[in-house]
Amino acid sequence: MTISNNYQNLVKKLEEISHLNGVMCTLGWDQEVVMPTGAAEARAQQIAALAGVIHGRMTDAQLGECLSALQEEDGVFNAAQHCNIREAQRDFDLETKLPKQLVMEMAALGSRAHISWVKAREENKFSDFAPALKQFLELKKEWAQCAFPHLNPYDANIDNFERGTTVAEITPIFDRMKTELIPFIQSIRESELQPDVSFLQGSFPVAKQESLARKISQDIGFDFNRGRMDVSVHPFCGGSHPTDVRITTRYKEDNFVESLYAVIHETGHGLYEQGRMLEGRDLPVSQSLTMGIHESQSLFWERMIAQSKFFCAHYFETISASFPDNLRAQNHESLYQAINVCQPGYIRVEADELTYPLHVILRYEIEKGLFDGSMAVNDLPEIWNELMMKYLGIKPPTDALGVLQDSHWSGGAFGYFPSYTLGAIYACQFYRTLVSEMPDAESNIGAGNFAPIRSWLNERIHSQGRLYTPQQLVQSVTGETLNPNYFIEYLKKKYSEVYQLN
Amino acid sequence: MTISNNYQNLVKKLEEISHLNGVMCTLGWDQEVVMPTGAAEARAQQIAALAGVIHGRMTDAQLGECLSALQEEDGVFNAAQHCNIREAQRDFDLETKLPKQLVMEMAALGSRAHISWVKAREENKFSDFAPALKQFLELKKEWAQCAFPHLNPYDANIDNFERGTTVAEITPIFDRMKTELIPFIQSIRESELQPDVSFLQGSFPVAKQESLARKISQDIGFDFNRGRMDVSVHPFCGGSHPTDVRITTRYKEDNFVESLYAVIHETGHGLYEQGRMLEGRDLPVSQSLTMGIHESQSLFWERMIAQSKFFCAHYFETISASFPDNLRAQNHESLYQAINVCQPGYIRVEADELTYPLHVILRYEIEKGLFDGSMAVNDLPEIWNELMMKYLGIKPPTDALGVLQDSHWSGGAFGYFPSYTLGAIYACQFYRTLVSEMPDAESNIGAGNFAPIRSWLNERIHSQGRLYTPQQLVQSVTGETLNPNYFIEYLKKKYSEVYQLN
Repeated sequence: MTISNNYQNLVKKLEEISHLNGVMCTLGWDQEVVMPTGAAEARAQQIAALAGVIHGRMTDAQLGECLSALQEEDGVFNAAQHCNIREAQRDFDLETKLPKQLVMEMAALGSRAHISWVKAREENKFSDFAPALKQFLELKKEWAQCAFPHLNPYDANIDNFERGTTVAEITPIFDRMKTELIPFIQSIRESELQPDVSFLQGSFPVAKQESLARKISQDIGFDFNRGRMDVSVHPFCGGSHPTDVRITTRYKEDNFVESLYAVIHETGHGLYEQGRMLEGRDLPVSQSLTMGIHESQSLFWERMIAQSKFFCAHYFETISASFPDNLRAQNHESLYQAINVCQPGYIRVEADELTYPLHVILRYEIEKGLFDGSMAVNDLPEIWNELMMKYLGIKPPTDALGVLQDSHWSGGAFGYFPSYTLGAIYACQFYRTLVSEMPDAESNIGAGNFAPIRSWLNERIHSQGRLYTPQQLVQSVTGETLNPNYFIEYLKKKYSEVYQLN
Repeated sequence: MTISNNYQNLVKKLEEISHLNGVMCTLGWDQEVVMPTGAAEARAQQIAALAGVIHGRMTDAQLGECLSALQEEDGVFNAAQHCNIREAQRDFDLETKLPKQLVMEMAALGSRAHISWVKAREENKFSDFAPALKQFLELKKEWAQCAFPHLNPYDANIDNFERGTTVAEITPIFDRMKTELIPFIQSIRESELQPDVSFLQGSFPVAKQESLARKISQDIGFDFNRGRMDVSVHPFCGGSHPTDVRITTRYKEDNFVESLYAVIHETGHGLYEQGRMLEGRDLPVSQSLTMGIHESQSLFWERMIAQSKFFCAHYFETISASFPDNLRAQNHESLYQAINVCQPGYIRVEADELTYPLHVILRYEIEKGLFDGSMAVNDLPEIWNELMMKYLGIKPPTDALGVLQDSHWSGGAFGYFPSYTLGAIYACQFYRTLVSEMPDAESNIGAGNFAPIRSWLNERIHSQGRLYTPQQLVQSVTGETLNPNYFIEYLKKKYSEVYQLN
């Protein structure tokens, strides 16, 4: 089969864009991890210049002509080629359909809104952030109208992060989770038994934390010849290419669990990136699918694997050898209990796996309300606190610990939050399939033999790139559509045991 | 005074090019310091894509039109504006005058020649590298003809690194240095007194070396809020902007002098970059002038300052506190003697300040001979060894330790070597002026008070950017043209004392 000139031409253009995006990712990593503080202004200008170049390439008329020619062509393309054409067309449309004026307004507001959010959070004054939030809401409605005119505005914003997923799909899932989890969390709060977490307090030398985290990341399968691990203010997974994947964490002298589980989480993201299909690595077909699927991979390792009894059993000795003074009187059972404590708190990023979905649902409901007009920006602090009380039984003492805690809205990232919980549901559903197809999966975890599990994920998910929609992928991996029941069952079973309910 | 639209337009274009060049510099630093080994191929593609973008911007027809319009304009420009126009025109001509075919041939050969040089050096087989070297010589003659048709080919290649400097200027300087230095080095070799360097051998913990080097770099004036210090295979000074200057060094457990003086050397480069004029930092006028002037700044701090008695007197206690076991029986005098040992060796980059010029002169004479046809590539190993014997009294046992040691020719960088010694001469001449204008300069060094010296360099050199040619700059700073006598006098006086000659 000969490949058409148009297609070859498209590939060349897409590869160039991918190379330049890789450069942008290196700038981003550099800024978070190593850039001197004094370089911020110069870096912003460098990033703007490169962004301008990339935008120029993505909206190049020749790219549009090439895509048009391909649409009219009677070419025979395989699935990967079809995918590249489809994705390129989608990106081209997204970049070119937006009025330049709108793009510039969003960019300018992004910068201003972030500054106003930082200040408002510092000074605990929501009213200072409210005007920027209102403006962003309007711009994002306008954006939705241009980018996805066939969708309602909030669906369009969700689609931006979780392709093909809508309010109609999410709302019943989240409603069911509320019905099941709110009373369950309440019964945990009332439980007389509470796991002993006292031994997780103490002093844990950072060098020991670092080498422990590095060892476990490597055991799980992170390839340090094609990646790095560093320190940043917020843990993330970045890098410029599947051969250059960079995870970060942060260390606190008095808490080793946080850094270790952040590393495992980011390792999950990193394995997805390192595991992309070998062909077409600079083409859309090999790219990660959606935020939710990416999150399913990080949560798979962080929660399904590393918060399990099997994992604790395998690593207890290694961990207690790192911190002998602290863990002397413990065993793998008490470690398991301690890292699976459930404790409603104000802050989403510090939440355990049981309360986390309610943090997300709260935000989802607020975003939905803002987009459909049933909620007003000025009322958000009150709405937030009411919902926190209703869902988790606690009320934030300040807006900084409430409605002002996340940066997402200051960047206009409405529709992002659901991906976190969709990722958790995907992860659980994938895990259930894994265990049913690989009966020795859990004994493998207990033996520290992660290679078969990694291969399974790689074959089923990582290497599938963007060939399918998330809905098709879940169907193909698990044999059914997204099903929150498994996640709810998993949570109730696990935490009933930890807290000895019933 | 209103600034013409054409000029404003030019500034905008030059700033964009500068931002993109800054991005390229970040990629270069990343590659040398932190990039995972497995990412090499992807990085090469990313760099090529960005290089293509930058080349496109530099040869953009609109930039050419803008420059033409400025040439015809009757505008009133100040010195900085004149400089920006002049430099932009020069760069534009250099980028556009070259036939595309030649640019591509040079790029392709650069990659092939480097590989063949690495292999030839490993296998100590000059004949494997000779064909690539011959080709590069021909291409660089052709390049000279296109780029600087009014210059003879070797002068054109020198001009590429040391603007306005020619064989006619360099040869008498180098001849005079040979006449003076060759017999002087010979008498040092025959001297009965040889400084005790035994205490520089031993074990020097890397963490101690690192904190010592960082302290001294900071004392000298390197601003770590606008820069970093890291580790790489070869020390260098990189970074993307005057607010983002990155120096590197390498540590050997058994040698602290090498890492420390590499840091001081790179700090000198770094101060030049951090000290660029505050206006127009993304325009040519603020950029460093030439390789030789840059080297004058690194050598100024490494040699004129840090190899002086005053510096040793000030830092002896700090250094011996870092390595108490090794320096217990020493004092600042013996430290001074030991770091100023003169020892003819095969390798240029390991040479002391007295023998270094002869390494450079040897290479200069060979390059001159290759360009004027009086030497043939095939004869280079023999010529090299003969000259080494004549100049330094030693004969390399292998070509890897001789003609194959430097990477420069494998990249076609003919005409680069003279800059090292021109830099040393500039440094000495600048130092002489400093001391005459600032009588307490040396007592300031002895007191660790480097701020006045740094300010002097900043005012006279760093902040002058490209306003002047190197010749004009030397004249303006020192009141006379480049004069090698001061350097020769300095070397003979200093080393006569160290070796107690006469």
